[in-house]
Amino acid sequence: MSRNIYIDNVDQELAQNMYYEKLNISPEYDVVKSIDSLDRISYEAVYAKVSSPNYNAAAMDGIAVRSDNTLEATDVSPLTLVEGKDFIYINTGNIIKDPYDAVIMIEDVIEIDEGKVQILKSAHPWQHIRQIGEDIVATEMIIPSGHKIRPIDIGALISGGVEDIKIYKKPRIGIIPTGTEIIEDFKELEEGKIMDSNSRVFQNIVLKLGGIPKRYAPVDDDYELLKISILDAVKDNDIILIIAGSSAGTKDYTVNLIKELGQVIVHGVAMKPGKPTILGLIDNKPVIGIPGYPVSAFLVFDKFVKPLIHKYLGIKEDEKEVVDAYISRRIVSSLKNREFVRVNLGYVNHKLIATPLSSGAGVTMSLVKADGIGIIPQNIEGVEAGDMVKVELLRPLANIKNTLVSIGSHDLIMDILADMMDLSSGHLGSMGGIMAMRRGECHISPIHLLNGENGTYNIDYVKKYFPGNKMALIKGVKRLQGFIVEKGNPFNIRDFKDLSREEIIYINRQRGAGTRILLDYHLKKEGIDPLNIRGYTREMNTHMAVATGVKTGSANVGLGIYSAAKALDLDFIEVAYEEYDFLVNQDFLEDSKIKEFINVLRSEEFKERIKSLGGYKLKNTGDIILI
Amino acid sequence: MSRNIYIDNVDQELAQNMYYEKLNISPEYDVVKSIDSLDRISYEAVYAKVSSPNYNAAAMDGIAVRSDNTLEATDVSPLTLVEGKDFIYINTGNIIKDPYDAVIMIEDVIEIDEGKVQILKSAHPWQHIRQIGEDIVATEMIIPSGHKIRPIDIGALISGGVEDIKIYKKPRIGIIPTGTEIIEDFKELEEGKIMDSNSRVFQNIVLKLGGIPKRYAPVDDDYELLKISILDAVKDNDIILIIAGSSAGTKDYTVNLIKELGQVIVHGVAMKPGKPTILGLIDNKPVIGIPGYPVSAFLVFDKFVKPLIHKYLGIKEDEKEVVDAYISRRIVSSLKNREFVRVNLGYVNHKLIATPLSSGAGVTMSLVKADGIGIIPQNIEGVEAGDMVKVELLRPLANIKNTLVSIGSHDLIMDILADMMDLSSGHLGSMGGIMAMRRGECHISPIHLLNGENGTYNIDYVKKYFPGNKMALIKGVKRLQGFIVEKGNPFNIRDFKDLSREEIIYINRQRGAGTRILLDYHLKKEGIDPLNIRGYTREMNTHMAVATGVKTGSANVGLGIYSAAKALDLDFIEVAYEEYDFLVNQDFLEDSKIKEFINVLRSEEFKERIKSLGGYKLKNTGDIILI
Repeated sequence: MSRNIYIDNVDQELAQNMYYEKLNISPEYDVVKSIDSLDRISYEAVYAKVSSPNYNAAAMDGIAVRSDNTLEATDVSPLTLVEGKDFIYINTGNIIKDPYDAVIMIEDVIEIDEGKVQILKSAHPWQHIRQIGEDIVATEMIIPSGHKIRPIDIGALISGGVEDIKIYKKPRIGIIPTGTEIIEDFKELEEGKIMDSNSRVFQNIVLKLGGIPKRYAPVDDDYELLKISILDAVKDNDIILIIAGSSAGTKDYTVNLIKELGQVIVHGVAMKPGKPTILGLIDNKPVIGIPGYPVSAFLVFDKFVKPLIHKYLGIKEDEKEVVDAYISRRIVSSLKNREFVRVNLGYVNHKLIATPLSSGAGVTMSLVKADGIGIIPQNIEGVEAGDMVKVELLRPLANIKNTLVSIGSHDLIMDILADMMDLSSGHLGSMGGIMAMRRGECHISPIHLLNGENGTYNIDYVKKYFPGNKMALIKGVKRLQGFIVEKGNPFNIRDFKDLSREEIIYINRQRGAGTRILLDYHLKKEGIDPLNIRGYTREMNTHMAVATGVKTGSANVGLGIYSAAKALDLDFIEVAYEEYDFLVNQDFLEDSKIKEFINVLRSEEFKERIKSLGGYKLKNTGDIILI
Repeated sequence: MSRNIYIDNVDQELAQNMYYEKLNISPEYDVVKSIDSLDRISYEAVYAKVSSPNYNAAAMDGIAVRSDNTLEATDVSPLTLVEGKDFIYINTGNIIKDPYDAVIMIEDVIEIDEGKVQILKSAHPWQHIRQIGEDIVATEMIIPSGHKIRPIDIGALISGGVEDIKIYKKPRIGIIPTGTEIIEDFKELEEGKIMDSNSRVFQNIVLKLGGIPKRYAPVDDDYELLKISILDAVKDNDIILIIAGSSAGTKDYTVNLIKELGQVIVHGVAMKPGKPTILGLIDNKPVIGIPGYPVSAFLVFDKFVKPLIHKYLGIKEDEKEVVDAYISRRIVSSLKNREFVRVNLGYVNHKLIATPLSSGAGVTMSLVKADGIGIIPQNIEGVEAGDMVKVELLRPLANIKNTLVSIGSHDLIMDILADMMDLSSGHLGSMGGIMAMRRGECHISPIHLLNGENGTYNIDYVKKYFPGNKMALIKGVKRLQGFIVEKGNPFNIRDFKDLSREEIIYINRQRGAGTRILLDYHLKKEGIDPLNIRGYTREMNTHMAVATGVKTGSANVGLGIYSAAKALDLDFIEVAYEEYDFLVNQDFLEDSKIKEFINVLRSEEFKERIKSLGGYKLKNTGDIILI
């Protein structure tokens, strides 16, 4: 069993520079028709071959005259002109030629007889005439080199008489997914198998960047098979990507294969995620080993492959938009690495707030949901809440500005709301939502907080945590909480006392979650010591995570909502209906996003979709309580 | 001869609302494979069908163990485990199944013998295991409806077991160019003919928006021919666009044809450019008459056609980014219309400055060069310099921020510089540049200003207009000024005295242009009265415009640079070499854009390209003079 346990930790820029020094990329060009050049990159500056218009053209409907022949016309002594001798009728776009040098608008022409008109005003030379070259002058530069051709550019190229243009040739990118557990056919998806998704993501990014992707079928973890695949891909492509197997495990063959067939320039980059990256060369072509976790794969592609493709396409700079945003939570990072943090962004109180999405490099959905990638530089130990960080945008800022930001308790209705309007939803539990609202990080906070003293929900917490502030609650739903248990309830769980039975493993929600507060309220009421509950300390952030824990057998029971149990086909023991409402500052009530939110809550469509979930009651939904 | 002289003046939003009320658009869907869904729009929310991973998977290379079997392991008393009985070797991604419930990293495993290892620490249940659904939980919403599918979304769809998805069906857009002078074959481009460019621009915008364009060959201005074309297009498309002929001229048949075949809802919109717009209906399909001037056509498409295509595609909002910018010049507009002004944008002194591009609706190049479209609302008489206006971006803000903004004198070398770096170049003459620099609207100002008293260039003007400021001149080129005359110099022009000859028509530059100052200096020196020069009051903004005036015979002579005469194959009579330099504030000298600019000026490539133009001398180019 051979392992390459040690990999390097080279700075990202240094790794890039080391690599580019070894590469010898000489972009080539193709010639295409201008009309087919959309989104291609100009290989050289393009100059107009003809002027547009290429003749003096009437800019109005009317008559063409000789200006020096009209000098005597005045209001008091109209001048009579004879068709064919003194003028001709013309329409916009007609040629104006000798002897005519001016156009009089038809509105200023008095038709007095067949072939005879009168005018009341003389004409300036060249009036109402589009002169040769008004739009484009022959020899004028239409587009510079390295320019991505837009529809309007195509119009200008055609007007400038440019029939064909030189554009950068598209590079061919070979993409090899690897891993014995990786499959590409949905029919083969069984336990222990994983659908190949990274290569499909890369294939489509390459398309969007303007390259030609060539994706190969997944290759088993087999040194010889992989070698054949790589050699094949090197023959047919300009850049070769090998997905997974880039680290130093038993079956991570990539680094040794590149060493055998060519040269490894860098193995291991000081970035997180993305550390086990291999930058290699075979036959002078870049061959890059990319880690298999989706988030790592995406970032390594972005940092190392995209700039390479840009080089082939003559694109000098990344179009990526980077913004400054206030980070909403402390992030601890290692001095050794530059860290990339998926964040949601929201405009709240005229400040751009970045909220980190806390999940591992394996979570594709965190990238799907992210608005941007925050960058924590190397050589610092992290950032404090409120610090400014650089964020690379994944969505246009205009969309982000139009998005309602919710931070608080998790519920499946948040998905439905997000489908019905622009809503970004962060799940930190009810108390997490209240704290985020206090820090001004969100527009609304979904909360369900029971006051154990009087059995009321939410209002007392708002009064306590926002003294002196004008707040409001937008009434949401009444939702059913209960025990999520395995199908058939094999452990016969009935009430809170059952949780402390020795054979039962519980799965808990995090501190600050409304569901956790509900649990603790009942435990206290019934005098149950939390320390007697196995699994009490294992904390999950969402109802679905709790349900999944039960589903996979890592726990027998968790407290959660009906819809989560139903979604995973688990059984459910009712505990109580609770009030799940939306906290908002009264100042925001007039905001168009909040108004839309309330309209959505009150809509028939929302009500119908909620009913189909089960486990909810709608009462006063969309009403506003001022506090 | 029948004319529809009067057209309406309906507010833009009102026109849209009137039109949408009559339209009955019901978007349809197609089903495609998820892997082929890039850039399509989801027709409904998409939920995961399976969890990912769909099994408990090792997250590390190492050994799988039963956690309750490891409790006794400590640093001082290592625990020995036997392969097959207590543990199995696993790699990242392998299935972890009963009885195993934890993974120990290979780095923490001491291999003591074949099939025997020791550990020094107990394992928590589920440590280093990616649990079922860690990435995606079955039933979780992956993307909402109306979402434009990105590469990463495709990855998540595949991981969630979603093989096919419903996407909005692409609408078919029929595009009919009209006009007897309009041709589509470059070979037919002769005097009086104009290449059809609008339909090609539309075709490509439709492609980018996600529709299916169907472009027809240009149709002559003939009522019956046009009728056949329209009926044909209505049969095969969802939306029909008729380019040109939308106004009220003799040959503007569109409005009458739509009336005959269907219904005209609006003819004439209160926007400029774009007024002669027709919003009509035939067979319940939108048929839109679009004015033929390229800028009008582009804007009418943007305001009326794009939102329609979005409706078919289920896109709720325009992704267009709108920014606030300070307008650099007064713009007078009519109370009657909303006006759209093409602008260049620049970040100067941390302020976003919009400089209007002053040219007519026929000038495609003004759109090619524009960074955005400024909006002057209806019901105001214009805006003053320094006012804030809304600007719809045509280029990403990130690019605009990286662009060096030049305002000042025009020279062909500005094209070459713009090809070699990100440079936006506005042409207001040397004095216009100095004024723009004083107002903080640009980074550099190209100037060539002769002090008639002592024969020096530029420095005295900088001292005069920037007293107390630390300014600098970056030395540019010495360029040859002279008389641009018709080929063969038929009027035998030799010196300034010839300009006042009775038969000579001069074509002038605008006040404030260095070339104008040069002319006036020589006229004064030689005692020539400007009023004796015919054409002295006809002012052009660029050298190429002057040369074009001579080329087209509307003037016999103009003062200008050699390269402009050469570009249009005209003759040239030398007058003087002058110093064309770049004014900059000393504070900017450390700016990376200015540094790049200086590097470009000093580069061999620049020198070679300048030499090939002719009429320039390079001396001290790129040197910096502090003032």
